[in-house]
Amino acid sequence: MVKVKRLVLDVLKPHQPGALEFCRQIAASGEGYRVCLKVDEVDENTQTLQLEICGEDLALESIERVIADMGASLHSIDLVEAHNPADAD
Amino acid sequence: MVKVKRLVLDVLKPHQPGALEFCRQIAASGEGYRVCLKVDEVDENTQTLQLEICGEDLALESIERVIADMGASLHSIDLVEAHNPADAD
Amino acid sequence: MVKVKRLVLDVLKPHQPGALEFCRQIAASGEGYRVCLKVDEVDENTQTLQLEICGEDLALESIERVIADMGASLHSIDLVEAHNPADAD
Amino acid sequence: MVKVKRLVLDVLKPHQPGALEFCRQIAASGEGYRVCLKVDEVDENTQTLQLEICGEDLALESIERVIADMGASLHSIDLVEAHNPADAD
Amino acid sequence: MVKVKRLVLDVLKPHQPGALEFCRQIAASGEGYRVCLKVDEVDENTQTLQLEICGEDLALESIERVIADMGASLHSIDLVEAHNPADAD
Amino acid sequence: MVKVKRLVLDVLKPHQPGALEFCRQIAASGEGYRVCLKVDEVDENTQTLQLEICGEDLALESIERVIADMGASLHSIDLVEAHNPADAD
Amino acid sequence: MVKVKRLVLDVLKPHQPGALEFCRQIAASGEGYRVCLKVDEVDENTQTLQLEICGEDLALESIERVIADMGASLHSIDLVEAHNPADAD
Repeated sequence: MVKVKRLVLDVLKPHQPGALEFCRQIAASGEGYRVCLKVDEVDENTQTLQLEICGEDLALESIERVIADMGASLHSIDLVEAHNPADAD
Repeated sequence: MVKVKRLVLDVLKPHQPGALEFCRQIAASGEGYRVCLKVDEVDENTQTLQLEICGEDLALESIERVIADMGASLHSIDLVEAHNPADAD
Repeated sequence: MVKVKRLVLDVLKPHQPGALEFCRQIAASGEGYRVCLKVDEVDENTQTLQLEICGEDLALESIERVIADMGASLHSIDLVEAHNPADAD
Repeated sequence: MVKVKRLVLDVLKPHQPGALEFCRQIAASGEGYRVCLKVDEVDENTQTLQLEICGEDLALESIERVIADMGASLHSIDLVEAHNPADAD
Repeated sequence: MVKVKRLVLDVLKPHQPGALEFCRQIAASGEGYRVCLKVDEVDENTQTLQLEICGEDLALESIERVIADMGASLHSIDLVEAHNPADAD
Repeated sequence: MVKVKRLVLDVLKPHQPGALEFCRQIAASGEGYRVCLKVDEVDENTQTLQLEICGEDLALESIERVIADMGASLHSIDLVEAHNPADAD
Repeated sequence: MVKVKRLVLDVLKPHQPGALEFCRQIAASGEGYRVCLKVDEVDENTQTLQLEICGEDLALESIERVIADMGASLHSIDLVEAHNPADAD
């Protein structure tokens, strides 16, 4: 079964919640998630973030839901890494 | 017997399916495949992707079929890595 | 439980306390903290610092308090890294 | 006895055979060969390739023959690595 | 207890003592110090140095004293790294 | 006793012998030699090469002789690495 | 006791002795010395060299003497690395 190992997302977020809480919530959306959030740009009302998420098998739908629940929007998926482990692995 | 270990492909894809599903399908096309998809450009109707695929012995034909089945087209093969294991290996 | 592993902060600080004491106080605000302070700019009254803080689980609130207690201000959060350890970890 | 360990060749190839088959044939020309083919340029009739070949002891003559057999031409040898193993090695 | 692990200092020094003796004296100011001195600029009367000092727990005061004793001046502190070892460490 | 461990030479060579044979001959001039030859420039009659030679203790004289025997000329020595092993080594 | 571990020197040398002999003599000036000589510039009468010297405890005086004995001059000391080993080391 194919597993999604890494995602890099471009996200537009309002100032609240702050970057730390936003990152915490994304990490909380999946067991074993490791999230690195970089603030690329800050405007009057929004922040443009680059989110790199790594994990055993990432669920984009739940990540998108968490992003929307915090009033932000997924601008684009920039990178996807998927592995199809051989039976022996 | 020569084995194809790594391919870097330039692919033009419609917006649907999304990058994640596209990457998942390529990975699913072969046991042990590890796929890294980068979105280089996004236009009104298409996305230009760079696909790096690694594996024990990649089958380009089935990868091309999966690409075509998803309505995308293989624009060019940018890199090929092949090994001819010595009998001792 | 999600843990905050790394923060990169942009801080504006008066000349006193000096960079070393400032860094020492930030490190003292949490057990196991490792702090790297870079002085990016020096003006007549202030210094612009980049603070990279690593640790087991960083508490931004207490870091912000220490910053404020020393008369400085947190200008922006540039990077947050959070991990949600799998039960097995 | 001196052994040729690595070659980087600049090759001009017609569009057929494709990059993958071309790379496979070069690898097949010697036991233990590892070949990395990069497509540097594509014109109406030809592709300019950079071929990096590694192995225990590469035979340039047979590589040149395979290149010619596929209708391509060796434009230049850019890098050669040769080792003269000490008796102790 | 917080320990200062690394300092990068910008120092303005007269031509005497020479760079080697200057570096030796800074290293001698603390047990276990490792000092890397780079000469960035040389003018008629002075040299601008970058001093990187690493150690178990650096004492800036004694370093500053040694700098002053040799007729030089600490122009700025560019980087400070401090660790607050967890009890388990 | 001081040993010469690495040399980088700038060499001007006629088109014949070819780069591979040239590299092979340099490697053959000393037991344990590892030679990496890069072709920097190609003119109508000559090639400008960068030769990096590594070994236990390189003999420049015999390397120069081999270069001259093949009709080429040592344009310059760009890098020399020499070690004076301590008795304990 | 402080030990000088690494020096980077800018040296102006006449064409004779050649770079290899020059490097050999510097290495011979101290047990365990490892010397990397880069030729940065060549003029009609002189060569500008960068000498990187590593060792257990370098003696600049004897290095300077060897440089002078070969008719060259130490233009500048660009880098000095010194360690003050802790008693436990």
